[in-house]
Amino acid sequence: MSYRFVLRQLGLLMIVLSVAMLAVTALEFFLWSGSGGQEMARRGLMITVGLGLITGAVLWFAGHSGEYERMGRREAMLLVALSWILGAGIAAMPYYLWAVFNQAAAPDHRFLSPIACYFESMSGLTTTGATVLNDIRSLPPSLLLWRSATHWMGGLGIIVLFVAVLPSLGIGGKRLFQAEFAGGTRQGVRPRIGDTARSLWMIYLGLTLAAMLSLRLAGMDWFDSLCHTLSMVSTGGLSTRDASIAYYESVWIDMICIVFMLMAGMNFALFFALSRGRWRVMWKDEELRVYLMLKLVVVVLVTANILGLQIVTLTGQTVEATLGQALRYAGFQTVALHTGTGFATADYDRWPFISQTLLIGLMFIGGCAGSTAGGIKVIRFWIVVKIILGSLEKVYRPQVMRPLRVGKSVMDDDVKLGAMTYVLLFLALSAAGAVLVAAFEGIGGEADFLTAYSASIATLGNIGPGLHDVGPTRTYAWFSEPSLVVMSGLMLLGRIEVYAVAVLFLPRFWKGD
Amino acid sequence: MSYRFVLRQLGLLMIVLSVAMLAVTALEFFLWSGSGGQEMARRGLMITVGLGLITGAVLWFAGHSGEYERMGRREAMLLVALSWILGAGIAAMPYYLWAVFNQAAAPDHRFLSPIACYFESMSGLTTTGATVLNDIRSLPPSLLLWRSATHWMGGLGIIVLFVAVLPSLGIGGKRLFQAEFAGGTRQGVRPRIGDTARSLWMIYLGLTLAAMLSLRLAGMDWFDSLCHTLSMVSTGGLSTRDASIAYYESVWIDMICIVFMLMAGMNFALFFALSRGRWRVMWKDEELRVYLMLKLVVVVLVTANILGLQIVTLTGQTVEATLGQALRYAGFQTVALHTGTGFATADYDRWPFISQTLLIGLMFIGGCAGSTAGGIKVIRFWIVVKIILGSLEKVYRPQVMRPLRVGKSVMDDDVKLGAMTYVLLFLALSAAGAVLVAAFEGIGGEADFLTAYSASIATLGNIGPGLHDVGPTRTYAWFSEPSLVVMSGLMLLGRIEVYAVAVLFLPRFWKGD
Repeated sequence: MSYRFVLRQLGLLMIVLSVAMLAVTALEFFLWSGSGGQEMARRGLMITVGLGLITGAVLWFAGHSGEYERMGRREAMLLVALSWILGAGIAAMPYYLWAVFNQAAAPDHRFLSPIACYFESMSGLTTTGATVLNDIRSLPPSLLLWRSATHWMGGLGIIVLFVAVLPSLGIGGKRLFQAEFAGGTRQGVRPRIGDTARSLWMIYLGLTLAAMLSLRLAGMDWFDSLCHTLSMVSTGGLSTRDASIAYYESVWIDMICIVFMLMAGMNFALFFALSRGRWRVMWKDEELRVYLMLKLVVVVLVTANILGLQIVTLTGQTVEATLGQALRYAGFQTVALHTGTGFATADYDRWPFISQTLLIGLMFIGGCAGSTAGGIKVIRFWIVVKIILGSLEKVYRPQVMRPLRVGKSVMDDDVKLGAMTYVLLFLALSAAGAVLVAAFEGIGGEADFLTAYSASIATLGNIGPGLHDVGPTRTYAWFSEPSLVVMSGLMLLGRIEVYAVAVLFLPRFWKGD
Repeated sequence: MSYRFVLRQLGLLMIVLSVAMLAVTALEFFLWSGSGGQEMARRGLMITVGLGLITGAVLWFAGHSGEYERMGRREAMLLVALSWILGAGIAAMPYYLWAVFNQAAAPDHRFLSPIACYFESMSGLTTTGATVLNDIRSLPPSLLLWRSATHWMGGLGIIVLFVAVLPSLGIGGKRLFQAEFAGGTRQGVRPRIGDTARSLWMIYLGLTLAAMLSLRLAGMDWFDSLCHTLSMVSTGGLSTRDASIAYYESVWIDMICIVFMLMAGMNFALFFALSRGRWRVMWKDEELRVYLMLKLVVVVLVTANILGLQIVTLTGQTVEATLGQALRYAGFQTVALHTGTGFATADYDRWPFISQTLLIGLMFIGGCAGSTAGGIKVIRFWIVVKIILGSLEKVYRPQVMRPLRVGKSVMDDDVKLGAMTYVLLFLALSAAGAVLVAAFEGIGGEADFLTAYSASIATLGNIGPGLHDVGPTRTYAWFSEPSLVVMSGLMLLGRIEVYAVAVLFLPRFWKGD
């Protein structure tokens, strides 16, 4: 294991995060006037920037320059896991420092717990969008912007990682992406990583600008447009308002969010292919078709299910569910939960059981591979569905061999086993998470079973809100610290697809060089 | 498809069931004096015997004698599915007829619903042990005996099917059994089926006699000993008492039940090997070791979890959970639920969340393949665990190939895919069942989520009782008929390992000859 190479890369990450934090602070300082508590927030941010730069520099020089080519699988996995674990640490510091400086004014603020701060920042970097804050507006604007910025950076990191870096290392989802996407993953492509990453970065930036302008034109102010855009294109979900998107009471804003959330849940390799002029790829992509079809089916079913009922929005208003309104709210919640964004406009915790079940089902499935969405990913879900259907025929006609195809690619046994293993691992982890949370909260009755279970899925799947006590009108503020630690772990596991963290617990991983 | 061959075999089944019903009626008539309502029950039984014999004879002669060798996979699957579907129909008739004859005395008995009768008889034949009766003693002894007899016959059918018939047809679990067990599954073994089946029948009969004598010696009367034995060696669970085994308030009876339930959850191929003098097989069997280890771990954890609490038994008594008492009740419930017997002594619905979760986990896993226990089976659970652990190393060391072994056998990709597919199918079905039941019952709140989900697992896994409203002190009497239909389907699917039923819904299954 080449530890010093990993150290150096972590140093680089610290420096990048610190510079980003500096940029956020400066942006907020020059463009928006501060409200109360701003000085304390800025002081916290600047202290963190200083510490981050120093730590980063130390790690950089302590580390080994190494050769880029020397990065093996184990180094990559260790680096990925540590990036999120340390990144969340540094990103959490401004929250904690602000709360300490501001203790006189808010003596029992949730951010006075370092673990709560860590949860919030892990929720940001993993694009989950779960919050420990009951009163979001208590936070000064610079920290609100920082919260959303963590989403955006975490989202970019994931896209680059899963579309550009990991496939070219041959890790994990390699064969889940059709070879045509990356335009050459089959040849040695190390030199191409930088190239691909740059393109993805431009696409992401383009989406961000388009979303921000759209929200601004629809009537949101610049600050909120920026924050919500950062949360949206990364399928994060943290909002600057307690009532989330419902606050604006605007059909246009709802529709804009639906469109951009939908795009953010798509495989970014598709956008990459589009940017190279390969339009056909989009129409032929089977995962995309399934992704859209799943949404369509669930939107129709949920709309039918809530038609005629009273929809309670997150601002507390009651809306008669005419066809139009039912479609609007069902569409928004379906897209928001399926992509793991976790924005909300309606209190879907009051919706009928069938709708809730469908939404939980989509939370499990999540968006497309190569996106920032959570869950097991559409492609894995689809492979598993095809395997199960195929297995039925195999029972009575074992001699018939039908290769399992997704698009034009034949899925071999390794891909099949990999998809099923991941799904089972995801299910097992969500169950284990629910049990741990339930145990730590000391809840035993059936009333809290759904809370524990949906909290576990909502964090492991990087969604944000769940049902009942973690429903859209509630937050994660009430959890005890052990539960917050468990759920921080779940967010991390879900974000980097389990393996990069799980292997660290294998003694064998650390042996050999 | 050779329909006439299938018809003839179904005719044979009708005749066998009718003869068994006649035997049960005669046994009860000569050995035990009847209480009120006996005449009506006997009349119902005899009418069914008559109808069954006539139908059986008609099917037999309408069917084609065929050649035994002509039974292909499709015929076998169709026969298996129809055997349980029709068998439950004929086994349900005495319940319904009795209720109709007895309508004046019990105008709102649950058995006045043909669907409730079908549920009860499907629960019997699939060795589930769920009941729609709130007052078991309202049933005359002949019907109580018939209920337990359906367990016993269903259990024997499953053992013969999965140990003798299916493996030699090469269906399903073939490679799950180590070749050494059947002593020749690798050669052409059609002629051996009868031989193996006879041995299994003798083993089953031996277990039954041993269990009945043990219970009698421990103080149970002859009638209850017989009924409980029939329910126990088949991991069924229907009791002649509302308080189940707790009624006898005897440590000895509890211990005898634990031992025989434990044996009934083992692979009967092991007993078969023992009967051929191959003792070593037992000590080398990895599935058996995992099965026992799982039990040990859960018993220890549950004991620790309930230590010092007040245990409420099913007779309503409160017992201080000293180490001895905690072990007794934890041991009983763990074995009863893991093997899917579903007998109960304590109201585990009052136990802490951790204990309940562990018990539900075991309900999922179930007993060993080749037993009458339900769930996904220990061997599949174990294969999946090994695949998941193996996949971790594979992520960072893809070049290392470690074959997955269970015992000395290497599991190839087909076996791995098969095990994972079945586990996912089982999970998907239990979720679908829960949703359907919840939808039919019109329940939406979180209070009933656990009820719906545990009812779904308890029926699909052929366990019997679940948690909360289907907990050990409750029954399935309160469900509406649509839910009972769904759960009858789940019991059937779980019993014959899904495929034999599921393939019937494929149009392709019916094509060709």
